Amino acid sequence: MSAYDDLMAYQRQTEALAQVAGRLSWDRETVMPRGAAMQRSEETGALHAVLHARKVDPRIGEWLEAAAQEPLDQVGEAQLRHIRRSHERTQRVPEDLAAALARQTALAQGRWAQARADDDFAAFAPVLAEIVALRREEGAALADGGDVYDAMLDDYEPGAKAADLEAMFGALRPGLIALRESALGAPAAPKVTGRFKPQAQMRLARQLARVCGYDMTRGRIDKAVHPFSSGSGDDVRITTRTAEDDPFNCLYSTMHEAGHAVYEQSIDPAYALTPLGAGVSMGVHESQSRIVENQLGRSRAFTGWLYGQMRDAFGDFGIEGADAFYAAVNSLHRGFIRTEADEVQYNLHILMRFDLERALIAGDLAPLDLEGAWNARFEADFGYAVPRASLGCLQDVHWSVGLFGYFPTYSLGNVYAGCLAEALRRAVPDLDAQLAQGDMGQAMGWLRANVQQHGGLYPPRELITRACGAEPTEAPLMAYLEQKFSALYPS
Amino acid sequence: MSAYDDLMAYQRQTEALAQVAGRLSWDRETVMPRGAAMQRSEETGALHAVLHARKVDPRIGEWLEAAAQEPLDQVGEAQLRHIRRSHERTQRVPEDLAAALARQTALAQGRWAQARADDDFAAFAPVLAEIVALRREEGAALADGGDVYDAMLDDYEPGAKAADLEAMFGALRPGLIALRESALGAPAAPKVTGRFKPQAQMRLARQLARVCGYDMTRGRIDKAVHPFSSGSGDDVRITTRTAEDDPFNCLYSTMHEAGHAVYEQSIDPAYALTPLGAGVSMGVHESQSRIVENQLGRSRAFTGWLYGQMRDAFGDFGIEGADAFYAAVNSLHRGFIRTEADEVQYNLHILMRFDLERALIAGDLAPLDLEGAWNARFEADFGYAVPRASLGCLQDVHWSVGLFGYFPTYSLGNVYAGCLAEALRRAVPDLDAQLAQGDMGQAMGWLRANVQQHGGLYPPRELITRACGAEPTEAPLMAYLEQKFSALYPS
Repeated sequence: MSAYDDLMAYQRQTEALAQVAGRLSWDRETVMPRGAAMQRSEETGALHAVLHARKVDPRIGEWLEAAAQEPLDQVGEAQLRHIRRSHERTQRVPEDLAAALARQTALAQGRWAQARADDDFAAFAPVLAEIVALRREEGAALADGGDVYDAMLDDYEPGAKAADLEAMFGALRPGLIALRESALGAPAAPKVTGRFKPQAQMRLARQLARVCGYDMTRGRIDKAVHPFSSGSGDDVRITTRTAEDDPFNCLYSTMHEAGHAVYEQSIDPAYALTPLGAGVSMGVHESQSRIVENQLGRSRAFTGWLYGQMRDAFGDFGIEGADAFYAAVNSLHRGFIRTEADEVQYNLHILMRFDLERALIAGDLAPLDLEGAWNARFEADFGYAVPRASLGCLQDVHWSVGLFGYFPTYSLGNVYAGCLAEALRRAVPDLDAQLAQGDMGQAMGWLRANVQQHGGLYPPRELITRACGAEPTEAPLMAYLEQKFSALYPS
Repeated sequence: MSAYDDLMAYQRQTEALAQVAGRLSWDRETVMPRGAAMQRSEETGALHAVLHARKVDPRIGEWLEAAAQEPLDQVGEAQLRHIRRSHERTQRVPEDLAAALARQTALAQGRWAQARADDDFAAFAPVLAEIVALRREEGAALADGGDVYDAMLDDYEPGAKAADLEAMFGALRPGLIALRESALGAPAAPKVTGRFKPQAQMRLARQLARVCGYDMTRGRIDKAVHPFSSGSGDDVRITTRTAEDDPFNCLYSTMHEAGHAVYEQSIDPAYALTPLGAGVSMGVHESQSRIVENQLGRSRAFTGWLYGQMRDAFGDFGIEGADAFYAAVNSLHRGFIRTEADEVQYNLHILMRFDLERALIAGDLAPLDLEGAWNARFEADFGYAVPRASLGCLQDVHWSVGLFGYFPTYSLGNVYAGCLAEALRRAVPDLDAQLAQGDMGQAMGWLRANVQQHGGLYPPRELITRACGAEPTEAPLMAYLEQKFSALYPS
């Protein structure tokens, strides 16, 4: 056995245990009896303690050093790159700082939920200040002299730099605001009416998931309060939710999560239970869910087919004709909540969070001043005022649990989805004819061949560049949004 | 921190991880996508490797030694007794023998399933011989000079001795055979007719589980191929199954598993995630499921109430009146399969397995000769011949996975249930009046106070003796069966 083999055998067990931890989370969100929460947190804690002990095992450093002297192919080099990155991260953060962060974020989540319920930012501000201080300290340790925010970003999007994202997002912002302004001044899009039975929604959701290429023999669909996808390889489960007056919530959540899940299911099986056996970054993951949900799922061609399916499933629901249905699915609307935002304004939400969290981490914005800064920026970008903190800076859990550097990967995913959709349309010229038949097969095959199968083999940006034949930029996304929404909302 | 505290903190994490392993098994049997089986076995394997490494950790021996010098209360002494027992077991079995057994039983289960499908005992015999040889070797190591079979029995029923069980079972056998003979010569009991909708069965099953005291806020009911109960403390889940022509399968499986589950749910919460926080032995566990299913659930009083519930749920199902319903629920019938056997003949199944497996382990019966010995004994006890191996010695998975010493705990559970039911009726003189109202509350309260809450505090036999006020014997079970079935089948 070489050092590389030893390391990979060890890593394989760690990956398997991480899958178990993922399954426990799925269980908690879907089927766990509500009285089991306390006991479960102890069970989860014990498993995470095992995972942590494995990550700090000193043998990993020794194996890495020895394996670096061994002849390896491209896959082996990529495996080592992932393991080394995770190992260096662990080495750089002192144990007591990691423990303090774990303790504080566990507390802060409850304080955030209470503050949100009370619409009381002042109650949360000191907690946030504590989290920011700890994360800055951790970021500085991770950065090792480099940029602190970039070091945080690297956890979710390896290799990404805030300066690049700033340029990308800066180029998007005026166009997004212009689209938002013209749409919100125009007549409202048609709306569905009536009640949509949950069972019928779930039936159609299952059908849509299959259309997206989701393999139900290696996955399953359940309901959860917040839809998510979990697991890798041969056990990738998704959840969705149903609202009786809004079928699109269920159907497009399902397509979004199916996009994530199909990515995991499509990775080369040779990478299963290794560091290459999962989606390579949050941004690339989001690109796969967004292209399925939006560029494919909300296209005029696909919604034409979906309209027929919905008429079959629900009868008359107040929308006459496929064009009106397309407008309903793609309506731009006022709203304060990121997770309910449309394709255009979603990015405005992310852009402001990106700027605000960088200011928090840089120390240019005091946590106590967050609410004011949030509200001012919201009004500037969205055109109306935030009435209360639960609809403003307290709406997302992310910062309370220490997630800084995570938000921008959502819009980066949209940017990547824009690039990939452009390349896909070049590769499959009659894509719309296929989508109009409810057929995503060739589109998903292209994504699988060019993105998904590679798992963690290439760094994220390189992966997208290889797939598209050019470095990613925001231009395709902006062009797509402008073309689509200026047609739907002519000024 | 004392050595005892250190040991218990360590043990607590082990117990939490064991609960996670149990949750994974539940997942596999209920919700796991079928394509996930291979990956799952690796995930489970990784978790069991962690559990094994914790069990052989040399610190346990050091802590045990140091803790023995510390002042401890009754609970502390009982905790140490359990940990010491498990530790000694681990110490006695050489690692390579344990590994060989794990490997062989994993293989043998597949070979058994194939042999059963082919009705081909000869194909399975060499596999069985290998398992018997390995288990004898392990048993000898565990026995450390004592009786080999007793050492195996001790894994499932601490402190039990085969000689005692032999005497008990020997005293039961003639009475059981006599009951079987007179019943099978009598007119057949009435049978249900029609179709019973699975959804309505499950609704009634949920109601029955609640009647048995099952706390659904700390559990849940799903369907599985083979009903089981899993988990301890605040997450104890049960499964059942439905057959459209036989509602009793679902309803009495549910009551049986609810009996197991309520035991786990009723253990003193102070013992959660410790060695005392689970049912103390297989026999005691089975006593709790059997008393709920049989002595309570199949009583004339309770079935009178259940008859009304079933009429409400299913309308007319071909049984006229509560007496006929009672006879239908308690019909004695011909059959070859243990898991489908009635209250009387179930024990005949166990008694023959107990004798046969002791002969296998003692070397008095060659594995190759098992089929002949099985068939001869079956015809002697049941009165008719076994037509093929799948209905005979290949019907149970147990021996293929190395479970020797396990079967007798089923009938020991019935014996304990007989003793407990007698004591319960003394303590609650108007029990039948309560059962006739569908009320098991006081009965379950008595079981909770006298048996269940104690978890692993007392050794099994001592626990039953304390609850009943006398040493357990087979006499109450035999008296109960004779009284019940000689009335139902007068000769």
